[in-house]
Amino acid sequence: MEKIKVGILGYGNLGRGVELAISKAQDMELVAVFTRRDNVVTDMGKACINVNKIENYKDKIDVLILCGGSATDLPFQGVEMVKLFNTVDSFDTHAKIPEYFANMDKAAKESGKLGIISVGWDPGLFSIARMLFGAILPEGNDYTFWGKGVSQGHSDAIRRIKGVKDGKQYTIPKEQALEIVRSGEVADLTARDKHLRECFVVAEENADKAAIANEIKNMPNYFADYDTIVHFISEEELKKNHSKMPHGGFVIRSGKTTDEHKHILELSIKLDSNPEFTSSVLAAYARAIAKLAKEGKKGAVSVFDIPLSYLSPASNEELRKHLL
Amino acid sequence: MEKIKVGILGYGNLGRGVELAISKAQDMELVAVFTRRDNVVTDMGKACINVNKIENYKDKIDVLILCGGSATDLPFQGVEMVKLFNTVDSFDTHAKIPEYFANMDKAAKESGKLGIISVGWDPGLFSIARMLFGAILPEGNDYTFWGKGVSQGHSDAIRRIKGVKDGKQYTIPKEQALEIVRSGEVADLTARDKHLRECFVVAEENADKAAIANEIKNMPNYFADYDTIVHFISEEELKKNHSKMPHGGFVIRSGKTTDEHKHILELSIKLDSNPEFTSSVLAAYARAIAKLAKEGKKGAVSVFDIPLSYLSPASNEELRKHLL
Repeated sequence: MEKIKVGILGYGNLGRGVELAISKAQDMELVAVFTRRDNVVTDMGKACINVNKIENYKDKIDVLILCGGSATDLPFQGVEMVKLFNTVDSFDTHAKIPEYFANMDKAAKESGKLGIISVGWDPGLFSIARMLFGAILPEGNDYTFWGKGVSQGHSDAIRRIKGVKDGKQYTIPKEQALEIVRSGEVADLTARDKHLRECFVVAEENADKAAIANEIKNMPNYFADYDTIVHFISEEELKKNHSKMPHGGFVIRSGKTTDEHKHILELSIKLDSNPEFTSSVLAAYARAIAKLAKEGKKGAVSVFDIPLSYLSPASNEELRKHLL
Repeated sequence: MEKIKVGILGYGNLGRGVELAISKAQDMELVAVFTRRDNVVTDMGKACINVNKIENYKDKIDVLILCGGSATDLPFQGVEMVKLFNTVDSFDTHAKIPEYFANMDKAAKESGKLGIISVGWDPGLFSIARMLFGAILPEGNDYTFWGKGVSQGHSDAIRRIKGVKDGKQYTIPKEQALEIVRSGEVADLTARDKHLRECFVVAEENADKAAIANEIKNMPNYFADYDTIVHFISEEELKKNHSKMPHGGFVIRSGKTTDEHKHILELSIKLDSNPEFTSSVLAAYARAIAKLAKEGKKGAVSVFDIPLSYLSPASNEELRKHLL
């Protein structure tokens, strides 16, 4: 059987994770990794190719996995790349998904390519859980919790404060809120009720720690609506204890079929490495996109549009026999 | 918008649950309920129609939900019905799924209809979790636990014993096994390690209780491989405390991306009413089958073949905006 030919654009944490995931898939092969930087060699010893040569690979790649960020890379990169390739990306700016989808759909339909947006765990697996649970139990509510894990955006916000040398922020779901939701109670939970924010900060020498803590706790959008704990630690301690990238979370739907009969559905994930897991989801959807594109599907799609069997290297017969 | 026209075949616990689920779906209407018995009126006041008149409804129903049992009804009923209608069923004899699928596929392709088999929570939701989790984390193991809940098959087995007037069996997952699996340990768990079986038995007057308990505990396939607890109780107590049909369970995948990075994915469900929940799943898939059949899809399919958006009454735009 011919292998699915995969390209990676961008070689940060996500790109590394995708390289790892593809190396373990017997039905896929990594053709090329593209970066903006020169002379990059991957963890697995592959020489990266400058992105300005990517057009030469137009007919050599079945699916290109975009490993850039949602803020600045993907809105432009996605639309440019889907003119040349079938694509998979992890666009995660929830509020801008309709606009991004429309742009991708237009470009993909013009080029005759297929692009899936917003793949990962949220958006991604958690979206699947919200959709599936809600379709089955229309009378009910769903609750999404994130953590315990490092939030990149909140860590960046801390690091932008004057006097801060480095910092990490953990988003932590509150046990009490989880218990309420799992009990089937209809709960009107605020941001503060659901999550706690814990910050580990390395201050510059002679910085005003009280002022830094105050600025963090009152930062609008990021921290002001939460209970926030700030710890000041040394650079060595940050490196030693807070350099990993664990994450996780919960989607819980509490619904009912009659007033007497409640039902609780829950998807929970606990990840040692957020980027490696997200990359594994990207790799599985790359397989699906390559297969669907081969069948002639075009335009932009999301995880809601993909029959699940396309994610697996196994045949439909095997899936039905062993997993149904 | 025109509503999806639904028929129900069989009016036991599942049929009642489907009637309830359809009554809450604004995009579906219940056209007819068919039974073998005469003069049956449904919970919602609908006069049932004798199944021998079902052929008259050939052009009046978009999708027929088969609410019979897997042991004796479905193997024959499914194949007969898919000659006339698009169908949804809950066939759950795991070992016979390939054979049943092949028969349904042949009949459906001949008639130009679409039939989905094995819908519910296991097979069904749990199959989706096993497949999706495995496609994302190919290096790993998955573990399915059932309960706490009433097992119909095991309750029936108890009731067949001489001297037993009535009985109920609960399948209970062992906390210790759940903990091991959730810790990410690769666990080689036996049937006994994973589940406990608790039986509540009403004995006939003067029956030999010790002999009954002994027969239950040593019954091959059903109880011999498990730790089994037998309680003898009165008929009143059974009625009062054990007439509900709760159930639930867990699918847990423990996988890794590198030797240092483990990931745990878990789907758990906790149901006050097993038949009402299963019926809610059947109703959602009936919607999907009606839509896919309208698009021209034919033959037999499983939950692995259905794009998830088809399960929802919402448009793709709404789904992407609110749930992605």
